Amino acid sequence: MSGWLAIAGLGPGDPRLWTGEVVEALAEATDVVGYIPYVARVPDREGLTKHASDNRVEIDRATHALQLAVNGHRVVVVSSGDPGVFAMAAAVFEAMEAGPDAFRDLEISVLPGITAMLAASAAAGAILGHDFCAINLSDNLKPWELIEKRLRLAVEADFACAFYNPRSKARPEGFGRALDLLKALCEPGRLITFARAVSTPEETLNTVPLAEAVPEMADMRTVVLLGSSLTRRIDRPGRAPIVYTPRSVPV
Amino acid sequence: MSGWLAIAGLGPGDPRLWTGEVVEALAEATDVVGYIPYVARVPDREGLTKHASDNRVEIDRATHALQLAVNGHRVVVVSSGDPGVFAMAAAVFEAMEAGPDAFRDLEISVLPGITAMLAASAAAGAILGHDFCAINLSDNLKPWELIEKRLRLAVEADFACAFYNPRSKARPEGFGRALDLLKALCEPGRLITFARAVSTPEETLNTVPLAEAVPEMADMRTVVLLGSSLTRRIDRPGRAPIVYTPRSVPV
Repeated sequence: MSGWLAIAGLGPGDPRLWTGEVVEALAEATDVVGYIPYVARVPDREGLTKHASDNRVEIDRATHALQLAVNGHRVVVVSSGDPGVFAMAAAVFEAMEAGPDAFRDLEISVLPGITAMLAASAAAGAILGHDFCAINLSDNLKPWELIEKRLRLAVEADFACAFYNPRSKARPEGFGRALDLLKALCEPGRLITFARAVSTPEETLNTVPLAEAVPEMADMRTVVLLGSSLTRRIDRPGRAPIVYTPRSVPV
Repeated sequence: MSGWLAIAGLGPGDPRLWTGEVVEALAEATDVVGYIPYVARVPDREGLTKHASDNRVEIDRATHALQLAVNGHRVVVVSSGDPGVFAMAAAVFEAMEAGPDAFRDLEISVLPGITAMLAASAAAGAILGHDFCAINLSDNLKPWELIEKRLRLAVEADFACAFYNPRSKARPEGFGRALDLLKALCEPGRLITFARAVSTPEETLNTVPLAEAVPEMADMRTVVLLGSSLTRRIDRPGRAPIVYTPRSVPV
């Protein structure tokens, strides 16, 4: 029996946001590999072995998954959201490049998922309805100066922005610095949305003018969406407001 | 009976990339509204009325869908990809703002989908594995000068870039200008991937150094992914190469 490796996105939380392709791969798998809370989302069944590991061991986890597949297992590496957006796909390919030739010979596929910014934008309305960018605010894997440079250029381009990993336990002060910079660059009424645990029972959405944003509005389960200068809010009596970016930029 | 409106993403083509949530909404709908080829993707069934309209009538289509829901219908507006990314969600909210109060009182939801860039990045590997941006290259709804400005800033930020709508029938020359600008800004070996009709039987993936890219590599069914300066290619004997962007930026 020949093994294979699929790197699958489980979306933001609700299993109703899994694609049919991911459901099929999990049904055929012998092994599931991933970060503890994501592996826990996959239902137990006979014949399925779960390998759950802690955060910050992505390359070890990827190498383990590749080795299982080389040994003939049918392996699904699970990520939250989309596996290609600040998640496990790049880590698996880094491990493939660093590993033995057998890793490159594998049947390997990436199964896309609903990444956090798409779920958050949809829950709020359509914040990413025009040109936008996605920036990981963690400085674990890049210098902080590069994050600041990208924030400046993103605002100059008038992109809507999705910020992943705004606040980590290890480095909680970074997000405050990012907010201060954004407040200096944007008009005070610029809309910013804090979307926490979207699609789960703990979901909260909080849209405020940038001048009123404080770091404590975000935690590790939050994705932050900063509107462009054209992002608008529709207030609705008795219903949540809608936040969206129109398709057109006036000439 | 009270009506509702859901704006749903059908992903890039293959129904196996629909989410469970979208499948449920379509099963409960009385009406499906959308652009002709997207409505055609929804299977016929008794009790479901399909309203297919031509391209470039997004606001008329959105208003029609909102009015059907006000009249008590259960309406799904279908988009390709994700409805919030260069698709119908923003158009529906524009029509809501311009329309009668009844439009704001509706139960309305956006059901996210796999947008083209995520499917294309996954098919190639993980091109969007680090910070990135998404730019619509059509100048139907914004001035061309703004597109050029955003391309310059995106390259300066060293984002990977996803380009939607690279070539329209109406304005085929724009993409050639964009490519010329990118060639002037980036090193000649920068990787660029042309992903056409991803997840369909007509899928093609073509990754070349930017210096070899020509406008004819894209058509209306293509999304184009430009790597960052760190995007790499893993060649594999007898298998398609993998193109990915590592998670780390060296200090």
